[in-house]
Amino acid sequence: MMSAPGAGKTTLLERTIEQLRRRLGIGVIEGDVETTADAERVEAAGAQAVQINTRGACHLEAHMIRDALADIELAKLDILVIENIGNLVCPSAWNLGEALRVVVVSTTEGDDKPAKYPQMFAISQVMIVNKLDLLPYVDYDLEKVKRQALAINPRLHIFEVSCRTGAGLVTWCEWLETFARGEDA
Amino acid sequence: MMSAPGAGKTTLLERTIEQLRRRLGIGVIEGDVETTADAERVEAAGAQAVQINTRGACHLEAHMIRDALADIELAKLDILVIENIGNLVCPSAWNLGEALRVVVVSTTEGDDKPAKYPQMFAISQVMIVNKLDLLPYVDYDLEKVKRQALAINPRLHIFEVSCRTGAGLVTWCEWLETFARGEDA
Repeated sequence: MMSAPGAGKTTLLERTIEQLRRRLGIGVIEGDVETTADAERVEAAGAQAVQINTRGACHLEAHMIRDALADIELAKLDILVIENIGNLVCPSAWNLGEALRVVVVSTTEGDDKPAKYPQMFAISQVMIVNKLDLLPYVDYDLEKVKRQALAINPRLHIFEVSCRTGAGLVTWCEWLETFARGEDA
Repeated sequence: MMSAPGAGKTTLLERTIEQLRRRLGIGVIEGDVETTADAERVEAAGAQAVQINTRGACHLEAHMIRDALADIELAKLDILVIENIGNLVCPSAWNLGEALRVVVVSTTEGDDKPAKYPQMFAISQVMIVNKLDLLPYVDYDLEKVKRQALAINPRLHIFEVSCRTGAGLVTWCEWLETFARGEDA
């Protein structure tokens, strides 16, 4: 999972874990420049969590993931989520061995993000638009964002959610479960 | 000026230029990974503008600023603003020759940003909290953000604004004008 700082990755992870934890084993590797707050949050939601502090670095790299794996009981997991550093540029350039790349955008961060950070949308398979509940209060053209993103990457799966109201979360979680079980998504 | 993607740097610049353009000559160097949309916006607001496209790079560097200066009539300017790439990590590590570093945060991006990206707040002299108008609709503890930021950097000047309602903009612009004129700010 990748996004700008504050798009809501961790909250989306909490909601996703709450929905899926009875059916799937979920682990999370939390990347942060500093602090361990996010690992504590996703652990409280019901996932195994390991925190990586990059001490100033702007993205995760594969060797950090390899080292973190030693602290996770992989046999118990169906999904292992890597939450990258909040940054729409650098994480797009590093392969972490992931099976799926999800970029999260939010309705409060301006509707020009796919056009301004195209690489992130080109390398992702899923785009989640978060904070749908704030749409009435901001100038955000959701159709334009989807159009921009699909122009860069026509195969992008797009989900629209609000972690505050719960809108769209069931659809997203069902898709993710199907993907995790290796069925057609 | 530095911030996460979508915190509202360009809109804040537009409002600042509109307030100050009759009294000060303002130039802007716009950093973006792609597109020239931001330079067009600040030019329409009344500033001289030059766009730097970094073609994928996550921050500006001093040599890019030096090259951009060739396209600006410096004799006409009282303020030259550099708008860095939207990123709370990388721009904090590069000196561009600036006299003042301003970090913009917004009420929709979560109230943990100073704690999670401390270097950005440590090297800035000013923090502007934008999108005050959205405060009623989000879980954002403004006092906590100010406390966190001041714990990292006790000398930080803090302004609270809404570019949508105009709240706080006069106070910020008066402070900036005083700074630009070399008086005590």
